[in-house]
Amino acid sequence: MLNDELRKKGELAKEAAFVLSTMATETKNNALLEMALALEENEAKILAANEIDMAAAEEKGIGKALLDRLALTPARIKDMADGLRAIAALPDPVGLVEGMWKGAQDIEIGKMRVPLGVIGIIYEARPNVTADAAGLCLKAGNAVILRGGSDALHSNIAITEVLVTAAEAAGLPAGSLQLIEDTSRETATQLMTMNEYLDVLIPRGGAGLIQSVVKNATVPVIETGIGNCHIYVDSKADLKMAEEIIINAKTQRPGVCNAAETLLVHEKVAAQFLPQVAEKLLAKGVELRGDAATRQYVPAAKEATEEDYQKEFLDLILAVKVVSSAQEAMAHIRRYGTRHSEAIVTEDYATARQFLQQVDAAAVYVNASTRFTDGFQFGFGAEIGISTQKIHARGPMGLKELTTVKYIIYGQGQTRK
Amino acid sequence: MLNDELRKKGELAKEAAFVLSTMATETKNNALLEMALALEENEAKILAANEIDMAAAEEKGIGKALLDRLALTPARIKDMADGLRAIAALPDPVGLVEGMWKGAQDIEIGKMRVPLGVIGIIYEARPNVTADAAGLCLKAGNAVILRGGSDALHSNIAITEVLVTAAEAAGLPAGSLQLIEDTSRETATQLMTMNEYLDVLIPRGGAGLIQSVVKNATVPVIETGIGNCHIYVDSKADLKMAEEIIINAKTQRPGVCNAAETLLVHEKVAAQFLPQVAEKLLAKGVELRGDAATRQYVPAAKEATEEDYQKEFLDLILAVKVVSSAQEAMAHIRRYGTRHSEAIVTEDYATARQFLQQVDAAAVYVNASTRFTDGFQFGFGAEIGISTQKIHARGPMGLKELTTVKYIIYGQGQTRK
Repeated sequence: MLNDELRKKGELAKEAAFVLSTMATETKNNALLEMALALEENEAKILAANEIDMAAAEEKGIGKALLDRLALTPARIKDMADGLRAIAALPDPVGLVEGMWKGAQDIEIGKMRVPLGVIGIIYEARPNVTADAAGLCLKAGNAVILRGGSDALHSNIAITEVLVTAAEAAGLPAGSLQLIEDTSRETATQLMTMNEYLDVLIPRGGAGLIQSVVKNATVPVIETGIGNCHIYVDSKADLKMAEEIIINAKTQRPGVCNAAETLLVHEKVAAQFLPQVAEKLLAKGVELRGDAATRQYVPAAKEATEEDYQKEFLDLILAVKVVSSAQEAMAHIRRYGTRHSEAIVTEDYATARQFLQQVDAAAVYVNASTRFTDGFQFGFGAEIGISTQKIHARGPMGLKELTTVKYIIYGQGQTRK
Repeated sequence: MLNDELRKKGELAKEAAFVLSTMATETKNNALLEMALALEENEAKILAANEIDMAAAEEKGIGKALLDRLALTPARIKDMADGLRAIAALPDPVGLVEGMWKGAQDIEIGKMRVPLGVIGIIYEARPNVTADAAGLCLKAGNAVILRGGSDALHSNIAITEVLVTAAEAAGLPAGSLQLIEDTSRETATQLMTMNEYLDVLIPRGGAGLIQSVVKNATVPVIETGIGNCHIYVDSKADLKMAEEIIINAKTQRPGVCNAAETLLVHEKVAAQFLPQVAEKLLAKGVELRGDAATRQYVPAAKEATEEDYQKEFLDLILAVKVVSSAQEAMAHIRRYGTRHSEAIVTEDYATARQFLQQVDAAAVYVNASTRFTDGFQFGFGAEIGISTQKIHARGPMGLKELTTVKYIIYGQGQTRK
């Protein structure tokens, strides 16, 4: 049974979504700008709340990377505010009809983009997601219910209070943006089954969180983020280009989902390519884990286990394997990949084409780094996450992916024969 | 734990989906034509199997409407075959890239339509769905696992055998089309949680089946079909047109999801409109259930209960209500509608526009019958069902809705800055 807090929030969100669904673009944009300003004006309040979270987290002894994600600074608050301003500047996807056509008996049919309704976001201890997700959902005309991680609770409460006050003053209805303050597991599970109130649920965070949502949710879920991405260096690769791409994909930001985790190298170029690229990767602090053939060329590489090929390291570790053909590389990707981002480096037309067609992933690259899988890099101007499922949205999700469609039909009395 | 039959079928389907995903359009089309021919050539075998199902169903005493859905005739087998031929004639959605654009550093990005992968279809005792769903899924490059109702088991086995033999002879891989012959509830529940093998699950059938799938599935579901549809006759309606539309929407085929279940009439035209339309509806055998105002104008109407406004009758029964404004009509639709198809009859520009914008449904009509919500009527050339959910697909689903996308990116060595 749904607890009272959730039911009340669900009802309020549903009412708000109805109002937001036909709200003027200018009103929404103005609210986003006011929310941005309010974040900056309330910097002290937000930082004070964040200090409580940080102290508790340090006390608890959580890791450095998590602490860094939790920490807010004046610069990060400015980034959140600028993020909202950037969202305000994007075109409104709601109401867009991309052409109309005639159906049976000349009924005129159009497909209009409309908001999804009420979106639930479940995320971990990254307080910047609070402003980011709220801004994107609201711009696309949705009400949003946020459930952040317990470690960031004080920060999230402070940010939400600031945003809600500004949003309501700017004319958005009560219930447009709500935070669930009860961070218990039971309440999270209830949220996942609020089919009466939620139209979609988007988990943002690590593999554990996402799997838990997929398993427990009855509300439709958009799965995000796990990326075991590969770079395949073909026998016909420009090896200088291949080197730059794998170094970029592995080291430019190793903790993110579009970073490369495995390097596959064609046996014909392995002897030439592997020693030189290994030297540069090792110099950048990357630990290499290779199969026997790799270790023959790179003695510094550790022995790769089956698990190493399955794993999303999110760290300066790279699995390496020598393959005898592009087909073997694609079979490896099919077996171990998570359908996120996959790249081939080759100068061969037929092999490039085959890779683009046969590899099943949200983004398939020829001669570019997998790190481009990102709403901003793709030109969407925003990103709520990267979908790794096949239905509704795949790859980087911008404002459009936070909407659905309805058919609008203009008739003049037609009845079905 | 997954039973062995399901796991084996899942693995086989996944392999088949990989081959189908890049299969030449001509090979797929040829297979569909061979499957059509095989249905006709094996008419006797299929009819014999159907007779066993029919005898058992009559023995069990199942209702007339269900018996009719279960029954096969030479004409119905011909229809199934022609359905496959029509699917073969449709354009192949796979491989379609609707334009490309430049992302960061001029990477060239395209969004390519690709198959979903493995599709599960759970349906009731309608053997024609077997050929229909198989044809659509295969044309869109997907492998399909069918689980039909137990009452149609012999018919489904016969049809599947005929289709599989023809498909494999025409070059489709083993596992492209499979039927689950174990019709137990446990096996159905297992199918719904086969996330490792299934990309999407589409239930086709009554409300009970659909709710069970939504509740139990962890595989992404596309919900289909429940329609509590309304016709609102505005104060500015052309009353002759309104009469034709409600008679068509209620009586042309009352047992389907896009038939009207409730008539809403503006109080200004109720006195004139209701008696005349009631007479015609009653003459067509429609039972009317109205509120007090309606019964004042139509003494033959029974008293409507709260439940009557909630119900999808799928029968010659119509709930009627007099409203004081378009706003009240829209509020009624928002409260009782199932977001399927909703229509207004009006000559007023502003009211028509408001209805189109504010009513949240898969299809919103001005001056036309809700009966047009259908893939064929919309011009899609096919239909796997009508989605009543908001994610992935909404409204009639054709071949395109049985696909997903992947981003393909052409680079020349770009790395992320």
